[in-house]
Amino acid sequence: MPSISNKGQSMPQSPIRKLVPYAEEAVKKGKSIYYLNIGQPDIKTPACALQAVKESNIEVLAYSRSEGSETYRQKIAAYYAKHDILLGHNDIIVTTGGSEALLFAFGSIMDVDDEIIIPEPFYANYNGFSTASGIKVVPVISKIDNNFALPPIEAFEKLITPKTKAILICNPGNPTGYLYSKEEIKKLADIAKKRDLFLIADEVYREFTYDGNSHYSIMQEEGLEDYAIMIDSVSKRYSMCGARVGCLVSKNKKVIETALKFAQARLSPPTLAQIASEAALDTPQSYFDDVKEEYVERRNTLISELQKIEGVKVAKPKGAFYCIVELPVKNSDDFAQWLLEYFQVDGETIMVAPAGGFYSTPNVGLNQIRIAYVLNKERLIKAVNILKEGLKAYKD
Amino acid sequence: MPSISNKGQSMPQSPIRKLVPYAEEAVKKGKSIYYLNIGQPDIKTPACALQAVKESNIEVLAYSRSEGSETYRQKIAAYYAKHDILLGHNDIIVTTGGSEALLFAFGSIMDVDDEIIIPEPFYANYNGFSTASGIKVVPVISKIDNNFALPPIEAFEKLITPKTKAILICNPGNPTGYLYSKEEIKKLADIAKKRDLFLIADEVYREFTYDGNSHYSIMQEEGLEDYAIMIDSVSKRYSMCGARVGCLVSKNKKVIETALKFAQARLSPPTLAQIASEAALDTPQSYFDDVKEEYVERRNTLISELQKIEGVKVAKPKGAFYCIVELPVKNSDDFAQWLLEYFQVDGETIMVAPAGGFYSTPNVGLNQIRIAYVLNKERLIKAVNILKEGLKAYKD
Ligand SMILES: Cc1ncc(COP(=O)(O)O)c(C=O)c1O
Ligand SMILES: Cc1ncc(COP(=O)(O)O)c(C=O)c1O
Repeated sequence: MPSISNKGQSMPQSPIRKLVPYAEEAVKKGKSIYYLNIGQPDIKTPACALQAVKESNIEVLAYSRSEGSETYRQKIAAYYAKHDILLGHNDIIVTTGGSEALLFAFGSIMDVDDEIIIPEPFYANYNGFSTASGIKVVPVISKIDNNFALPPIEAFEKLITPKTKAILICNPGNPTGYLYSKEEIKKLADIAKKRDLFLIADEVYREFTYDGNSHYSIMQEEGLEDYAIMIDSVSKRYSMCGARVGCLVSKNKKVIETALKFAQARLSPPTLAQIASEAALDTPQSYFDDVKEEYVERRNTLISELQKIEGVKVAKPKGAFYCIVELPVKNSDDFAQWLLEYFQVDGETIMVAPAGGFYSTPNVGLNQIRIAYVLNKERLIKAVNILKEGLKAYKD
Repeated sequence: MPSISNKGQSMPQSPIRKLVPYAEEAVKKGKSIYYLNIGQPDIKTPACALQAVKESNIEVLAYSRSEGSETYRQKIAAYYAKHDILLGHNDIIVTTGGSEALLFAFGSIMDVDDEIIIPEPFYANYNGFSTASGIKVVPVISKIDNNFALPPIEAFEKLITPKTKAILICNPGNPTGYLYSKEEIKKLADIAKKRDLFLIADEVYREFTYDGNSHYSIMQEEGLEDYAIMIDSVSKRYSMCGARVGCLVSKNKKVIETALKFAQARLSPPTLAQIASEAALDTPQSYFDDVKEEYVERRNTLISELQKIEGVKVAKPKGAFYCIVELPVKNSDDFAQWLLEYFQVDGETIMVAPAGGFYSTPNVGLNQIRIAYVLNKERLIKAVNILKEGLKAYKD
């Protein structure tokens, strides 16, 4: 039998994959589960987006242009203008989710064995895209004690080698919820320019910023035009993860030209989903205001409930809808599995994401979990209570 | 300014990309163009597929499972059973078009510098996916004189090295229109087993077989279970290229397990398009009968019109909707550009795909073009007439 590739063998599995069979088993046994482990919001997709698909008069569901339809890209550019990001529609390539934009970016700027520096903990699938692209993730650690702020720039400096091609940040961060300040972005811009590196920013959570903090995009940074590559997506913004529409944005013409060749090879982003995404751009501001209010309430509830638990440390998220929680356990993998397998409060339990998988450095974050606050307030309170009772009952 | 990758630089462009500006210019000048260069059929998408999307009651457009929804995969398995391909839904991973299935297959079984043998001329994007995956295409030439039948198996034997991991065929073929016989598939199966190679078959044109010939899938071949990987897509079958739904099929559990890790990294295939694709499986047989009749008529018209032109050689396609045509010109790139730039008959001209880009061996096929018969009979007759007049007027 022919064997699979080394690449295939080393493709990482998502940190929660191992737990899925335990969750399925728990459900079979009649337990209900609060899913705090996923990035799939329960928020409704804007009606205008879904309606546009229903009203479309397509007879032949044809390929769209590889770079995305012209009208859609023009409207995206107008959306960015409202966020003080000024660019033309030719600086945008529409992709199949932010996921594909990451793959295109990696392929366009990095060869096998090249290195990319990423503050950890980071979105676990960066590992998968790196393995698929044959490149190496070099982590720089950020700490729960200062809410996962940008590590000192010297820590980046130390890690730069001739193989280093880029720095990747997620802003606001999954799984940290951290929102980088303008000053932090400027520091990153400086080092990118000084060391001739690309700065990739995954800004798929742009709208999700709280407490009056505003988001500063790498695309707003003057002088960074040749270095900045932004990753974006409709998935979280409009709660339409299943659309599979995102984009890669850069003012570096070479980057766009190159990413376009990857885009052409796979022909086209999804056509129906582009119709929905284009219409979603007309979502009224009130939708976002409501969503933000909802998330702030959830976050506040979550944090204050968590802080009541002894031995628990939590970083207060300023954006996105995740937070990292440090628990008084040795191994959160085991604890998360135990919660599904052996624990319940009135027939209910919780599923959380062990945080080890968000770190690239081995044996870091083993006592942490990520909680996604994608459930409503009442359900969150119940879920945190289960965590609290679980911690009391658990022995490691 | 940081530089793009060698990989990005060597990503090939589609063979017709160079012509696009000339086509745009021609249109600007008021010429109309018959587009014979594209694989986008003018056939209507089955109404049931589009209707299903309109009738869906989605409130949150959520991610689907990474491997595709369970019901959809079960229905695909039932569809295959009707084509004498027996497999379970867990042998299927739903992908974002056949394109992504090719990428997953390449990544799962090949490492950097590994080799894949492909009969040429072949679907040009195999080059792009190979470059993106860091692997090397090793072409084995097939000839217009025998309609691009399978090259002698000794020709494959000679090309196998320790780096060879797979043979890839397209059946029926784009751009050749050739349909492999059962005997040819058996020969490929034998060599795959003997030399321990994967046999990948791109069967996205399965339904498009003419003259009473039936399609023999590699998945029907007994004893090939561990070696066979099939690539499939709804794009052509239901004329819904813009859906971006395909699948990777294999009974080799290791392959499926590995491809699933690539699928998980990108989260989900498109949800709306999966709804359309699932409904498309209920398309009545009469739709396919009509489509087939239409294509046979187009093909017959095209071939008989082409055969009337002096100096033109054409391979009679038994499947798909493409054919390779040899012209009495030195360089079909130049000729195709000239047709757009300088030629017209009553304000009309044609756009064809120069065939050089479908060959991996340099300087082969330079006097050939690919014609896609995706236009109706009347338009095809006019288009071929323009080709005829063009050949008369052209001097190279
Ligand atoms: C930080 C981050 N980037 C990118 C993605 C990819 O999302 P999508 O491919 O749905 O746009 C996600 C999804 O969870 C994410 O959290
Ligand atoms: C031979 C072949 N394989 C694969 C594809 C990819 O199609 P899709 O990604 O739309 O399924 C095409 C499209 O033209 C093709 O001709």
